[in-house]
Amino acid sequence: MPAFSALEYRDRIARVKRRMDAAGVDVLLCAEPASLYYLCGYDGWSFYVHQFLVLGLTMDEPLWVGREMDAAGARLTTFLQPVSLEPYPEDYVDAPDRHPARFVAELMKARGHGRARIGLELDAFYFTARSYAELAKALPDARLIDVFPLVNWVRIVKSDAEIEMMRGAAAIVSRAMEVGMAAVAPGVRECDAVAEICAAQLHGTGSYWGDYPSALPSVPSGRKSAAPHLTWSGDRYRSDSVAYLELGGCHQRYHAALARTLYLGKPPQHLLDLARVVSEGLDSALDTACAGGTCHGVEAAWRAVIERAGYAKSSRIGYSIGLAYPPDWGERTASLRQGDRTVLEPNMCFHMILGMWREDWGFELSETFRVTPAGRPEVLTHFPREMVVKA
Amino acid sequence: MPAFSALEYRDRIARVKRRMDAAGVDVLLCAEPASLYYLCGYDGWSFYVHQFLVLGLTMDEPLWVGREMDAAGARLTTFLQPVSLEPYPEDYVDAPDRHPARFVAELMKARGHGRARIGLELDAFYFTARSYAELAKALPDARLIDVFPLVNWVRIVKSDAEIEMMRGAAAIVSRAMEVGMAAVAPGVRECDAVAEICAAQLHGTGSYWGDYPSALPSVPSGRKSAAPHLTWSGDRYRSDSVAYLELGGCHQRYHAALARTLYLGKPPQHLLDLARVVSEGLDSALDTACAGGTCHGVEAAWRAVIERAGYAKSSRIGYSIGLAYPPDWGERTASLRQGDRTVLEPNMCFHMILGMWREDWGFELSETFRVTPAGRPEVLTHFPREMVVKA
Repeated sequence: MPAFSALEYRDRIARVKRRMDAAGVDVLLCAEPASLYYLCGYDGWSFYVHQFLVLGLTMDEPLWVGREMDAAGARLTTFLQPVSLEPYPEDYVDAPDRHPARFVAELMKARGHGRARIGLELDAFYFTARSYAELAKALPDARLIDVFPLVNWVRIVKSDAEIEMMRGAAAIVSRAMEVGMAAVAPGVRECDAVAEICAAQLHGTGSYWGDYPSALPSVPSGRKSAAPHLTWSGDRYRSDSVAYLELGGCHQRYHAALARTLYLGKPPQHLLDLARVVSEGLDSALDTACAGGTCHGVEAAWRAVIERAGYAKSSRIGYSIGLAYPPDWGERTASLRQGDRTVLEPNMCFHMILGMWREDWGFELSETFRVTPAGRPEVLTHFPREMVVKA
Repeated sequence: MPAFSALEYRDRIARVKRRMDAAGVDVLLCAEPASLYYLCGYDGWSFYVHQFLVLGLTMDEPLWVGREMDAAGARLTTFLQPVSLEPYPEDYVDAPDRHPARFVAELMKARGHGRARIGLELDAFYFTARSYAELAKALPDARLIDVFPLVNWVRIVKSDAEIEMMRGAAAIVSRAMEVGMAAVAPGVRECDAVAEICAAQLHGTGSYWGDYPSALPSVPSGRKSAAPHLTWSGDRYRSDSVAYLELGGCHQRYHAALARTLYLGKPPQHLLDLARVVSEGLDSALDTACAGGTCHGVEAAWRAVIERAGYAKSSRIGYSIGLAYPPDWGERTASLRQGDRTVLEPNMCFHMILGMWREDWGFELSETFRVTPAGRPEVLTHFPREMVVKA
């Protein structure tokens, strides 16, 4: 039942071990759900309790440590042997007097890691400060070393099998955008438009079933479009206002994202002007997103276009995207921005998101693309780039 | 635009301050999205970057600290004055060389908290080990004290305005269960059933718009029903198998949850027997869930019924529910289980979830209820308790 071949998991583990070795750690303790999925296939909505993966340089396969009732899910979704599953008892859940990180620390001691150099991902989601404090207390002779985000940097270059998942995700989000653009209209409640969009995301297509995106649709309009991360409400869309849809598509935990703007009425000239420049900036940035180039260079191409037209943008224009769990579909590694010297490699994927948020309105245009071995990137998402105008 | 009156926020802040005082802290630093929403109204899908709330005993209102581009959302959703919004620059996002926790530490020093007793919620979601390390480094003269989950213990008793939100959430999940039971049938893909359910969750009702639940529908069948937290796939439901739906409903970030089991075909006798006993156990446990009773006592009433029938269950049978953000709708305070001596008070709300997971199948029955001032609890969710049988 794991989504990839055992061979692919072995290859991922080998690449992570090489990075561990380079970082000077003997054993890695992961808590990020995406890294658990990546290294052993584990997939469940169980990350609201503590769960871990332990991988030592001398271990053939990692050790899954999770809640007793989730061991059944680990048996069904991972490629691991039963001996590699180490559940902790139910009375560790939300308990004031015991903590799962203490359980994993004792386990590591019992397996000979009590004096090891242990790599931890200190800024990973769901690796809490309490987990760190418990490990430090229970492993006084170990060296705890922050290697965040070690596994994410391995994940950034996708295999061909992963790219196939990305294409599925892109097909889904492209379809969801069609549905969303049809649903948004004056008088419609935001929540009702989102309901249509989410249904499309989860139905997926005939070839690709819809998995849950790690972030929700962003569908603000009017004044609320100035705030990029507001979620919806029961408010109704109004005539003569701008709106945008920023959506994700997900297949087997792999993501593509897509944003488009629409205007309900006759768009004002300043919006048309901005839309034209942003579209030119997108073209120019995509032209430079070639293997061997840098994240910095891609952003610089965008910046040159918009500065010439008198615009500015302080935030990054994109980030590595792929395998993810809530709350984010970004990988927290490379960002398309000034100063990021990450060199683009084939099968890296990015969400290039050109968000222009003003005092009381906003505009977005985005694509998800794959860096190819030579030449321009493969744009995975498919939807016309022109601003949609609905009367 | 905040969901509650300024008066209600002031009351919440006063209650949190009383707990801070009792815990011996001068200032509290929160990172949990639900606690931000609770104390100032902030609501956005922005918790994939670091964000904080700072509340000192001597401060009239808390300080919101978040990403520059999210300040627009803070202006739109909180009751705070502009002077209480402290955004950090965009180049703190996913940056290897700077961290938002360092930003908040410098801010706290500048505001005179450099030698304070600072309360932190060390096991809160999204409060990472890295955040803690940065604070410890930047505030060497402060005392950092773990007070987790301080705000959650204030949240556990709801106001009447919050109970109204809970009733809305319950109406939504009850409706979503109807839709889900109609959608599941032999030959249907799991993802297609979930698409219908999510659409119902987000449409909501005429009176209550649908907000996003903090956890996704759980809809396993057959062998997968043995694993409580698997998510769906493109697999098709099959005849002669058991399935259950565990769903959430959400209105303005308040949650109700509901689980029911169905059988596609003629249910076997052992399943009918279990269903009858679990239903009796639910009745008995609800009978004891009265103000003045304890969480322990409620579980004991359940346990007596199922043990008499020869069953056992090692995991808790419920938890406090209410205001929440992903990944969980539980509040991580009181649990309905052996040894939890929390005394039930009026307007506490619980999700009582009776999950019986066997070697290769599972069964669930649940209700969300409110403790009333006297007598039996108010069951907020509404759906027939009998197992659904579909041919």
